[in-house]
Amino acid sequence: MDHPVTPPRQTLTPERWIDAATELLVDHGIDQVRVDVLARMLQVTRGSFYWHFRDREDLLRGVLQAWRAHATEQLTRRLESAHEDPREQLRDLLTLPRRGRAATRAARIELAIRAWARRDTMARAAVDEADSTRIGYIAQVFSALGFGIAEARQRAFMLYAQLIAESLLADHGSPTQRQDRARFAERLFQQPLS
Amino acid sequence: MDHPVTPPRQTLTPERWIDAATELLVDHGIDQVRVDVLARMLQVTRGSFYWHFRDREDLLRGVLQAWRAHATEQLTRRLESAHEDPREQLRDLLTLPRRGRAATRAARIELAIRAWARRDTMARAAVDEADSTRIGYIAQVFSALGFGIAEARQRAFMLYAQLIAESLLADHGSPTQRQDRARFAERLFQQPLS
Repeated sequence: MDHPVTPPRQTLTPERWIDAATELLVDHGIDQVRVDVLARMLQVTRGSFYWHFRDREDLLRGVLQAWRAHATEQLTRRLESAHEDPREQLRDLLTLPRRGRAATRAARIELAIRAWARRDTMARAAVDEADSTRIGYIAQVFSALGFGIAEARQRAFMLYAQLIAESLLADHGSPTQRQDRARFAERLFQQPLS
Repeated sequence: MDHPVTPPRQTLTPERWIDAATELLVDHGIDQVRVDVLARMLQVTRGSFYWHFRDREDLLRGVLQAWRAHATEQLTRRLESAHEDPREQLRDLLTLPRRGRAATRAARIELAIRAWARRDTMARAAVDEADSTRIGYIAQVFSALGFGIAEARQRAFMLYAQLIAESLLADHGSPTQRQDRARFAERLFQQPLS
């Protein structure tokens, strides 16, 4: 008698594990990102985790890489391709935090990663690198506007601060107020010191 | 035969529970703030928790109240008592995030509470209220500098953004660079739009 052929178990991609881990991180914090919890969530065996990852640490590295690729490249690609005019680029940057649901989700992920980075070296390194890359890109925009190196950096830091705060304080003010804030910031950031 | 007199068990104050809960929140996230974990941490019985708090929710409310009292009042009391000159008040504000260990601890707590607020209404309300109060106070400083109501609010939001980002990006740049940033921000924020 033939054994019944077991249909091949559907294999999860590493990306599925990473997405699920990111979800757990956002909703329950890093301590809850555990292989057993994930396996239950994804309805697969614990063992299948090890087809893709050496250990939990390896998965967490994947979470950070996926975040960085998405969050930083999103910004830098915009700046490299969208507008030639640095004034337009500045305006474009300042409206980034208001781009609907995707922006809200990105902000949630980033906040969870920053909280994790307060007590983890690997996460800290990823966050620091992302911050530096982004500030560096924004500084280039200010350089293109004619500011000197040091001043372009200072303005870039300030504009980046603005972006972070807008995404953290997502509910502060009406849509009109937020638009006014962005327009005001756009003018102030471009204005030379007298 | 007399029963031996049990020495009175040392009673914890509600503040001790709240401090311990805050510590757990910062180090492990809100899901780990549980009565049983706290009782073990403080080496007391679970039951003694209920001498002070109705339930976990009641404790969490206490955590938020303690945070708000400390974090917001610290800022507002400074502004009410320290300097008369709004220019001095502005400078004072911009150096807040660099005030050593207490500032670092405060930043850790605030970040953990913001992460929690992303998925909890009670925490969200506390954070929103703290943000509004602080921005309102900072707006008064800009009003005192002669800016109109709407513009004072916009500048206040921007300065507040700066404070939040400085505390989030605590390690970004050398102490000198951070001082330069604060000085630059101080000038830019005071400059009227041309």
